[in-house]
Amino acid sequence: MATAGKVIKCKAAVAWEAGKPLSIEEVEVAPPQAMEVRVKILYTALCHTDVYFWEAKGQTPVFPRILGHEAGGIVESVGEGVTELVPGDHVLPVFTGECKDCAHCKSEESNLCDLLRINVDRGVMIGDGQSRFTINGKPIFHFVGTSTFSEYTVIHVGCLAKINPEAPLDKVCVLSCGISTGLGATLNVAKPKKGSTVAIFGLGAVGLAAMEGAKMAGAARIIGVDLNPAKYEQAKKFGCTDFVNPKDHTKPVQEVLVEMTNGGVDRAVECTGHIDAMIAAFECVHDGWGVAVLVGVPHKEAVFKTSPMNLLNERTLKGTFFGNYKPRTDLPEVVEMYMRKELDVEKFITHSVPFSQINTAFDLMLKGEGLRCVMRMDE
Amino acid sequence: MATAGKVIKCKAAVAWEAGKPLSIEEVEVAPPQAMEVRVKILYTALCHTDVYFWEAKGQTPVFPRILGHEAGGIVESVGEGVTELVPGDHVLPVFTGECKDCAHCKSEESNLCDLLRINVDRGVMIGDGQSRFTINGKPIFHFVGTSTFSEYTVIHVGCLAKINPEAPLDKVCVLSCGISTGLGATLNVAKPKKGSTVAIFGLGAVGLAAMEGAKMAGAARIIGVDLNPAKYEQAKKFGCTDFVNPKDHTKPVQEVLVEMTNGGVDRAVECTGHIDAMIAAFECVHDGWGVAVLVGVPHKEAVFKTSPMNLLNERTLKGTFFGNYKPRTDLPEVVEMYMRKELDVEKFITHSVPFSQINTAFDLMLKGEGLRCVMRMDE
Repeated sequence: MATAGKVIKCKAAVAWEAGKPLSIEEVEVAPPQAMEVRVKILYTALCHTDVYFWEAKGQTPVFPRILGHEAGGIVESVGEGVTELVPGDHVLPVFTGECKDCAHCKSEESNLCDLLRINVDRGVMIGDGQSRFTINGKPIFHFVGTSTFSEYTVIHVGCLAKINPEAPLDKVCVLSCGISTGLGATLNVAKPKKGSTVAIFGLGAVGLAAMEGAKMAGAARIIGVDLNPAKYEQAKKFGCTDFVNPKDHTKPVQEVLVEMTNGGVDRAVECTGHIDAMIAAFECVHDGWGVAVLVGVPHKEAVFKTSPMNLLNERTLKGTFFGNYKPRTDLPEVVEMYMRKELDVEKFITHSVPFSQINTAFDLMLKGEGLRCVMRMDE
Repeated sequence: MATAGKVIKCKAAVAWEAGKPLSIEEVEVAPPQAMEVRVKILYTALCHTDVYFWEAKGQTPVFPRILGHEAGGIVESVGEGVTELVPGDHVLPVFTGECKDCAHCKSEESNLCDLLRINVDRGVMIGDGQSRFTINGKPIFHFVGTSTFSEYTVIHVGCLAKINPEAPLDKVCVLSCGISTGLGATLNVAKPKKGSTVAIFGLGAVGLAAMEGAKMAGAARIIGVDLNPAKYEQAKKFGCTDFVNPKDHTKPVQEVLVEMTNGGVDRAVECTGHIDAMIAAFECVHDGWGVAVLVGVPHKEAVFKTSPMNLLNERTLKGTFFGNYKPRTDLPEVVEMYMRKELDVEKFITHSVPFSQINTAFDLMLKGEGLRCVMRMDE
């Protein structure tokens, strides 16, 4: 392309400081260096994690920064050593990577790449420790290696999944983070059997994606657990058959679940990150065969506590990260599940706004309205 | 047999009160009732659990009682409704059962039978709530449904594994509890891959059986962890390649193990029941794919505590009971592993005494000498 090798000037939403509305600015995006790819973002969605690091409560503040990590785009140009992608390829950026060379990438079981594992504090490229974004020559920091709140962004090749070019990017962009995280937690880790009973803790987008996975796996009874009773109605579209609000009960919710399922659920997936919910999710699974899967990320000081007898009675406790999907190897197949109509992503997209209205997307999420708001970069 | 339907008078070792030497007495053993089997015990071994309930520290004292649960014998007669066993069958009594009818028995994953799951407080048969043992008409309590410290005992049919009659009972008797527990924890639950690194916490009989399982599975590096350095020499016979004594280090043993294995072991099996060892066993497994399996039974008040991030980084924590073997379905095959010389049980049997010297077996165990002491009932 004519822009290859040159600095591109384009619009980006810059977070200048914690908690302040983003500001659409003209930024300079440098060409990709070795093993990097410059991507034209067409659609980006907003995820809680963006809001979390924008608020920067209890986090290392890294500002000014271009947030954003759930997106879909097209390769504009590639840096030295990039052989798997060429300009024009359709890609999903991913906040964690796959170098294909470390012990984790070589393991069938892990997706925690040593080289490109998520790093929320780093605001620069790993190759040279520099940012590719500047405004009047002053660097603007990256976010989790993706920074998709920009018309163009530079991403390590290991953090880009090349997908079917026929897949509509305005839809499948939401598969680049939350939906795959929840879906994979159920399909790849919890693995409920047909006819089984599954409890899902937390009915946000990740929890509903975990629920969708349970439905796809053929679970007969899917119990949603959430403190907000308004979540039940929406959850029914994702297969929710029963709803439990812990606030409606005086006894711990794990006891409520054990009683209503004659000994416990077969699988539980925890998507809130609250430590009490994590413990409840584990303690509500049936002895002998129950599996609890933790997805939600807790506070740093949180401690998981349980009686070891709960384990000795043959329960399994596991955690997962990005649904155990390897970004480059597995994500294209998740997109194919959508293309084959096995996976419905439309129902996760409750809002759509022009990129210029990105602060509206933040407002919606802060108010807890809807699931995913997709922003159209060309507007 | 001539004795069928009649009371049998025979020798048994009776524990009259907590911690006092057993006394060999003449007991009356009533005929088996519905779903029960009277077994002539030929060999019985001593397991820590016998000693634990004989000491009755912190346990409900149930005395007078006939202890013993690791044994081999021959069916003398069967009660009403017993169709799977006939007089002359060779059997291993098991402290937990398999009714073949409950949800657990019908699950492929569980061996925690609802009907016949271990009950350490019950001293009577489940059919009629009575004991089959008396001395001068006064009842003597049973122990975990087996009470093998008697020449004859009455056992629920669901707690008897029918085995190959050619298997030498003086050897395979030790497969009825501890050895299978450790072996199954590794082979059925931890499932280490060929070439992997495995840590075993606690190098008693159960831990060494877990180690034997790791060796059989082809683990390349097997790290034994024990507070007693004298255990290393013996453990080498079971495949131990490295030994770590937590007392030799100022940092937590999990950190020592993570450092010496470049990030953590692939599998850990905990066989001590000490809560600190349980936590260490979990925290020493590699992120991305590590699996820790808990076998040892902790104090009732013990609390398992860890950072949930250890789970979210894709570690798995599971517990097992009796190595996940279903007693009737799976134990005969463990005996066949011995018959095919895939499993060496002889090296677990370090002592053998006549039944009359049962208190010598207790002394050896209290002193921590040897692994298994087999008692010969006919002497």
